[in-house]
Amino acid sequence: MKFTTVLCVLLFSGLALAQDEAIAFRLLPCFTNLCERIREFDAMTEKLQALETKVKDSENQIVELKNRETTKVIFSAAVGGEGGQSRTVGPFNTNTILTYEKVFTNIGNAYNAATGTFTAPVAGVYYFTMFFHAGGSHEAQLYLYKNSDLVIVTHDHRSDTDTADNGGNAVFLQLQQGDQVYVMLLEKCHVWGSDFHTTFSGFLVTQM
Amino acid sequence: MKFTTVLCVLLFSGLALAQDEAIAFRLLPCFTNLCERIREFDAMTEKLQALETKVKDSENQIVELKNRETTKVIFSAAVGGEGGQSRTVGPFNTNTILTYEKVFTNIGNAYNAATGTFTAPVAGVYYFTMFFHAGGSHEAQLYLYKNSDLVIVTHDHRSDTDTADNGGNAVFLQLQQGDQVYVMLLEKCHVWGSDFHTTFSGFLVTQM
Amino acid sequence: MKFTTVLCVLLFSGLALAQDEAIAFRLLPCFTNLCERIREFDAMTEKLQALETKVKDSENQIVELKNRETTKVIFSAAVGGEGGQSRTVGPFNTNTILTYEKVFTNIGNAYNAATGTFTAPVAGVYYFTMFFHAGGSHEAQLYLYKNSDLVIVTHDHRSDTDTADNGGNAVFLQLQQGDQVYVMLLEKCHVWGSDFHTTFSGFLVTQM
Repeated sequence: MKFTTVLCVLLFSGLALAQDEAIAFRLLPCFTNLCERIREFDAMTEKLQALETKVKDSENQIVELKNRETTKVIFSAAVGGEGGQSRTVGPFNTNTILTYEKVFTNIGNAYNAATGTFTAPVAGVYYFTMFFHAGGSHEAQLYLYKNSDLVIVTHDHRSDTDTADNGGNAVFLQLQQGDQVYVMLLEKCHVWGSDFHTTFSGFLVTQM
Repeated sequence: MKFTTVLCVLLFSGLALAQDEAIAFRLLPCFTNLCERIREFDAMTEKLQALETKVKDSENQIVELKNRETTKVIFSAAVGGEGGQSRTVGPFNTNTILTYEKVFTNIGNAYNAATGTFTAPVAGVYYFTMFFHAGGSHEAQLYLYKNSDLVIVTHDHRSDTDTADNGGNAVFLQLQQGDQVYVMLLEKCHVWGSDFHTTFSGFLVTQM
Repeated sequence: MKFTTVLCVLLFSGLALAQDEAIAFRLLPCFTNLCERIREFDAMTEKLQALETKVKDSENQIVELKNRETTKVIFSAAVGGEGGQSRTVGPFNTNTILTYEKVFTNIGNAYNAATGTFTAPVAGVYYFTMFFHAGGSHEAQLYLYKNSDLVIVTHDHRSDTDTADNGGNAVFLQLQQGDQVYVMLLEKCHVWGSDFHTTFSGFLVTQM
């Protein structure tokens, strides 16, 4: 701003001292205006720079919002898969991770149908739900783990008189990237292994 | 930019050849500055145009983000409705789509309580969950369909000794606009038909 | 714009009447251009102001989108907590709100583990789901309430031959800020009170 002030002073002095006062007089309104315009121009330059910064900020925030929106992790799978739609899974002699082989949905590929394990691709809060159907001839015990920690259980006793049972459970879990979630079928237990009954599902509710 | 260069050359020549050198001398700083200002002005015009394009882009992206946010599809309903809160639904002689008549929530009006059918208003991944309560005197078999494809099942056997059973299941499903999802009660089956027990719910997790 | 037109007229008249026509002639292209530039400058000032308004609008909308995004309400808890992981809760002589003491997740602190009550921090549509496991020696009746209104139920009969039962239910509910949701265990009923079996979960699907 100082520079333009000096400039204007020079300009006015120049005009005032002009030998041909007529010219100076006639040009004066224009130059007066010009000085003002130059000041306005400086102000505008500053405004434009400020606006460029604001727009850059907005763009960054939009990218951030879009990224939030575009990380999608959603899966659903049923025990079953190749080999038939009506068979039991188990009983086994040891605790065994259930491999839900029939995959309905696997947005983000975080669920591995070969191992039965879900691996969190990003830190966040996830929802998991599991349901089972099982006959009464054996116990059914399904343990949902986060890494090596037991989180929730659904189970039913064996029963000679009640030939079938159902169970389910659900949980919202905060996970770090790389945390693994899976369902363990306990030893000596079984579930009904069709493509339709015994399921494991989850989705990313929000990144955190 | 070339135009302004030519203009400045003209201007300087004009001043240099001016008969009254005193005037030229005194005005020189101003005109020198003016040329520079005109160049700056040209640059600013370009910057402003670039910024206008960026702001337009940002506005479009914000609209897109808002639209994503504003498509809400959420419903919950229970078998029941008019006629009492404690009655059985079924058994019927044929497979029958369950009409969940008591509507808790129907954001987006995608669930039709008269037909029991949910119709996807937009392509996306949806979550569906169903629960039933039923007495032991008949079998209970609930099949969740996507159009004509069976997706998940919950069912229980009839039992003389166990007078009541519960079941449920859930699934995330990728749907195209217009896909229909509904729950079929199989022939000779029944469920408890109160306003509170046997439910069907769903929501749009994300458009895709 | 009128002002600049007047200015240009003045400027041209000044040049036209100049005694030294040579100077006027040589400066003319520059001044002609200057007038045009001043007009352009006025137009640019208007454009910049319009753009500033648009950027301010965009910023406000981004803040709005971010606020939507940042209100997170998610909880999961199991009956259980201090005192052991295998015990029954109930039967009680009166209806009793279940206090799910073992908290898995409580983003937004809307669930109060001391009272078993969830209080909606913002108006919106919420998802709630409850699951129970219970032995056969007593009935299990779990009622999910919104304030004083019964919404959904899961229950099972007592049974001497079936020694254990499971049940669950889920619902999407539109709540106003301050609405309370909780699960009532009916008098003379019981559930299995471990840290893992009998759970209550919910999350804010969307603000409305």
